[in-house]
Amino acid sequence: MGGSTFGTILRLTVFGESRGNEIGAVLDGLESGFPIDSAAMNTMLRRRRPSQSSASTSRIESDEFEITSGVLDGKTTGAPICIVIPNRDCNSDNAADTLMRFARPGHADLPYHLRYCNCDHRGGGRASGRLTAAIVAAGSIAIQILSSKGIEINCQVTSVGGIRGNENNQDDRNAWESLVQMYRSKGETVGGTVSCRATGIPAGIGEPLFDKLDAVISHAVMSIPAIKGIEFGSGFGCEFNSGSTNDGPLMSGGVLGGLSDGTELSFRAAVKPVPTTDVPVEATDLGNMMKRTMTFNERHDWCICFRICPVVEAMTALSILDLWYQQHGR
Amino acid sequence: MGGSTFGTILRLTVFGESRGNEIGAVLDGLESGFPIDSAAMNTMLRRRRPSQSSASTSRIESDEFEITSGVLDGKTTGAPICIVIPNRDCNSDNAADTLMRFARPGHADLPYHLRYCNCDHRGGGRASGRLTAAIVAAGSIAIQILSSKGIEINCQVTSVGGIRGNENNQDDRNAWESLVQMYRSKGETVGGTVSCRATGIPAGIGEPLFDKLDAVISHAVMSIPAIKGIEFGSGFGCEFNSGSTNDGPLMSGGVLGGLSDGTELSFRAAVKPVPTTDVPVEATDLGNMMKRTMTFNERHDWCICFRICPVVEAMTALSILDLWYQQHGR
Amino acid sequence: MGGSTFGTILRLTVFGESRGNEIGAVLDGLESGFPIDSAAMNTMLRRRRPSQSSASTSRIESDEFEITSGVLDGKTTGAPICIVIPNRDCNSDNAADTLMRFARPGHADLPYHLRYCNCDHRGGGRASGRLTAAIVAAGSIAIQILSSKGIEINCQVTSVGGIRGNENNQDDRNAWESLVQMYRSKGETVGGTVSCRATGIPAGIGEPLFDKLDAVISHAVMSIPAIKGIEFGSGFGCEFNSGSTNDGPLMSGGVLGGLSDGTELSFRAAVKPVPTTDVPVEATDLGNMMKRTMTFNERHDWCICFRICPVVEAMTALSILDLWYQQHGR
Amino acid sequence: MGGSTFGTILRLTVFGESRGNEIGAVLDGLESGFPIDSAAMNTMLRRRRPSQSSASTSRIESDEFEITSGVLDGKTTGAPICIVIPNRDCNSDNAADTLMRFARPGHADLPYHLRYCNCDHRGGGRASGRLTAAIVAAGSIAIQILSSKGIEINCQVTSVGGIRGNENNQDDRNAWESLVQMYRSKGETVGGTVSCRATGIPAGIGEPLFDKLDAVISHAVMSIPAIKGIEFGSGFGCEFNSGSTNDGPLMSGGVLGGLSDGTELSFRAAVKPVPTTDVPVEATDLGNMMKRTMTFNERHDWCICFRICPVVEAMTALSILDLWYQQHGR
Repeated sequence: MGGSTFGTILRLTVFGESRGNEIGAVLDGLESGFPIDSAAMNTMLRRRRPSQSSASTSRIESDEFEITSGVLDGKTTGAPICIVIPNRDCNSDNAADTLMRFARPGHADLPYHLRYCNCDHRGGGRASGRLTAAIVAAGSIAIQILSSKGIEINCQVTSVGGIRGNENNQDDRNAWESLVQMYRSKGETVGGTVSCRATGIPAGIGEPLFDKLDAVISHAVMSIPAIKGIEFGSGFGCEFNSGSTNDGPLMSGGVLGGLSDGTELSFRAAVKPVPTTDVPVEATDLGNMMKRTMTFNERHDWCICFRICPVVEAMTALSILDLWYQQHGR
Repeated sequence: MGGSTFGTILRLTVFGESRGNEIGAVLDGLESGFPIDSAAMNTMLRRRRPSQSSASTSRIESDEFEITSGVLDGKTTGAPICIVIPNRDCNSDNAADTLMRFARPGHADLPYHLRYCNCDHRGGGRASGRLTAAIVAAGSIAIQILSSKGIEINCQVTSVGGIRGNENNQDDRNAWESLVQMYRSKGETVGGTVSCRATGIPAGIGEPLFDKLDAVISHAVMSIPAIKGIEFGSGFGCEFNSGSTNDGPLMSGGVLGGLSDGTELSFRAAVKPVPTTDVPVEATDLGNMMKRTMTFNERHDWCICFRICPVVEAMTALSILDLWYQQHGR
Repeated sequence: MGGSTFGTILRLTVFGESRGNEIGAVLDGLESGFPIDSAAMNTMLRRRRPSQSSASTSRIESDEFEITSGVLDGKTTGAPICIVIPNRDCNSDNAADTLMRFARPGHADLPYHLRYCNCDHRGGGRASGRLTAAIVAAGSIAIQILSSKGIEINCQVTSVGGIRGNENNQDDRNAWESLVQMYRSKGETVGGTVSCRATGIPAGIGEPLFDKLDAVISHAVMSIPAIKGIEFGSGFGCEFNSGSTNDGPLMSGGVLGGLSDGTELSFRAAVKPVPTTDVPVEATDLGNMMKRTMTFNERHDWCICFRICPVVEAMTALSILDLWYQQHGR
Repeated sequence: MGGSTFGTILRLTVFGESRGNEIGAVLDGLESGFPIDSAAMNTMLRRRRPSQSSASTSRIESDEFEITSGVLDGKTTGAPICIVIPNRDCNSDNAADTLMRFARPGHADLPYHLRYCNCDHRGGGRASGRLTAAIVAAGSIAIQILSSKGIEINCQVTSVGGIRGNENNQDDRNAWESLVQMYRSKGETVGGTVSCRATGIPAGIGEPLFDKLDAVISHAVMSIPAIKGIEFGSGFGCEFNSGSTNDGPLMSGGVLGGLSDGTELSFRAAVKPVPTTDVPVEATDLGNMMKRTMTFNERHDWCICFRICPVVEAMTALSILDLWYQQHGR
């Protein structure tokens, strides 16, 4: 596996940078004859898009996508599907020049600069969350195919800033909104956790030893920017159960010995507060490597827990469908 | 990636079953001319071996290994290294026949049976922790090579049954030992958490996008039997920090944007209580798929947190060295 | 390796169909800071383009390419390079409708139809030589990087229709041109052989056992449409030498035991006559699977030996650079 | 793909050296419940073994194999199959010491020495044909599974030293035997060609673009020591046909556009004369890199065309079954 390709039989390759004219994805290894639902792709992209809520960046991302290959008369041909998404509003950030000169703490700026020298970390460059739009578009196709096999995937916010709740509950949403507003008023950002469930997976999906279902999903989800942890079933809470009480389906998270066990797949992921804030930080001058306290005038999200849910669903779906194909063919 | 091979340039393939005559590992893609320290391999295997402590199984695992290829005059030749470890005491379990007829809850027995039909899940079969001996032997070589590059990896127990502590502290060890004894007296097992740190990794190791350093390590560590969760740096605690306070090196866990950031790599993993206990459980009769309450008379560990540490070190080392080779060659 | 991606560390993914609006390539895993020579890319694309010679199709392929990611200020950033090439003149073929209804002999039409059902084989679809434009553009970058390491690759025509010669010799070119004209006057096409040489490869490039230098290049070159055979060094002629006379550098083709031996790399490849002719052929009606003699009114090449040379160079360069990176890093 | 592993879903890993105590193969990714025919494995290994014919080395290779994992009650369990073959008679070569000091022309000795420094090229070391015993044992399993799907693979000698014939014809065999005797009387070795056919492959096996059926088989077969060329169907002879006469099934070799076309798969491979002879050669002293004329007193084959046939069948079967699994699952 190379850096920009994920999967064994079903392979996703992502390209583009946050400041380029377009980003995109190539999804190779799909079955042929499957009807693509563009509206569903749009709906999923809309969930990832910056919203009118106070949690989102003011950056405009229209995410109009174009499928340039692999689909004929609305159905997959079996050839690689290329999805292109133009970047709008991509060069107007006031902070662009500053960003090329200074490395922000908590960002990938410095390691990227040290490794690549010639890299564009404006807007996050290659490490930008912007690329997740291409992942969501491709993942939507995997979700549609899984759905046709009876498998449904759903990711929801379960906590923000330590306040637990359920995204479907309006009271919780209001409480979270208030909390984000409070952080925002101080120029600060906040993180949380999301919970992902998949129903309908038959027993036996996953490859024993190294490509266990939970190991592959962990790889996939931990590759999403801002995700700092993942746990299946009872997860980090398992040490509070004894062996015989930890053996139920809710505890397993739907995976036993690396294979789906026929029950609901369930995992939680930790979403860190985005490191771009309005607060003065200790930046590194890339010219002389000196530290300097400064404020970056970048647009940014205040809480990405909501926008990250479709990305988690996308990476989970790509993992499950790849392992399905490995076992059952296309 | 196939089920039994891990890595891109440095590739580990593991074979064998817990009831076979031997297990083993093939480690391919190493540099040549590196002197192998067999004593260090033995020391690391000894840490994984069932001990005299009350936490361990009474199963005898001598783990005498033999290197059958890839080493000449004590140094790597660049050819794949094959390590073979005989299974001793492997057929004497009283529960063997029963195990072939019933699927235990919390084990991989049922999904394996449904998928493979003809599989040997006695002693855990292919999903057995026994195979981690081969992983540790191979991982020890990766650790030695990393050490020659200035990178040191250390994994320790940080909690057992909810009691936090530090494995190096004798008081903590005593408290944990008492706790395990208490669980054991009820025929029960207990889980915990381990913490792994790696020092000396230069900035820039890891592949952006999908093969991020933390994503690959998550894949590797989550593939270890009994691991149910992983978190880097502030991990699941990150939601209690605001964006500007979460940007320090301790919070990043040593990874920014998927690349090592030059600070200490640090993650925690959750270890579930082993599902084999002395308590009656609801097993599934594989003949008629009926449930039946029964007790399995198997030898088992009471807490594997201590034995799992070298396995976590091994998988972490293999991940880092593979990504190192990808960037810098052999 | 999936169908549309080639390589281990340096990975080429190709997308698009001959009838779509654009084709393209994503080249991932390159070193950063390397200055891209667009003019050299254009020169190489021009060699692949249909020419004014009587051997070429009258189809217009302008092959203006655009690099949409991975390059900043003219230098690689280390991020995946995406190259997009618009298809001009792509829907105007008179034969389009007929082509969707009938499978031509000697073409991939029938196996593609049987496997994919919903596939676009107009103009060759996914199996089309058109996609080699994207391969050449990406390969040109690999060639430039190899050149900076002192490695030069050159592929030339060595025979057409059984007439041996040297592409650099004008007399030979004239003889070949006359031969192609003769075939063309009968509505027929003709094949030949090409010879590829690479100088400057140090000893030791290639991976023993399965990823031998010659095995990987064979995989790469045999994946080019119309290539039917490959031989290194003395190749199929080796049976006319005894063991001691076959051991010279010219005989080895520059590879011993799968590793470059420090001498010139040299192989020949067989190029079949394109199966699209103006002669009536036995086509298969995809509706009822009945045979029917018919003539296809498609534009086509009369001899692709000349146009295929840059494609062979591209695939060879990608193979060598990937194996170089595997051994020496980026 | 790393050097010692071949395949995507079905993966073969080979380990061992010609002078070690044992060699072996790990075959991962097989379906479960398939009954293994050990006698068929033995028969195939016997075809590869040095025979009483004058063409073979006097080295004793008993090739008694042991399956140490992945098989239960005679059937595959789905776990990786490990096959171990002890090396007998492996240290008795008179030339051993000399071989460590000098690099023979036409052998991999020099490139291996330059790359690995610490390598054991006695008896060919890692580049030795000895490892093909492990490939044949693993390949026999793939052949058995393909046979259960109606696919049969057969490789035969088609020429020795330029004399064409058919291995099944006794007159041809006698002529070849005389020719080998003639070479042998001068201390010389001789090469030839082999032809491999596979029947029963349904249309549509192979992955378009880079993992074409013929490209993957070329990779596989060209990785066999001593193979210097491969051609499918009309191959290098295609330039003597016009486009419309080259489009028949015999010409395609059973592959169109990289997919099986439903007709017989057919390719030829060139086998070089083994470079180990009794004739004085210009060896390189690895101490001072000076040339020196010398004779190596090694046992060796006089013609390996006969012994190589089962190896070609094995690599072909592994390629086809891997591509089958990729399309149809296990």
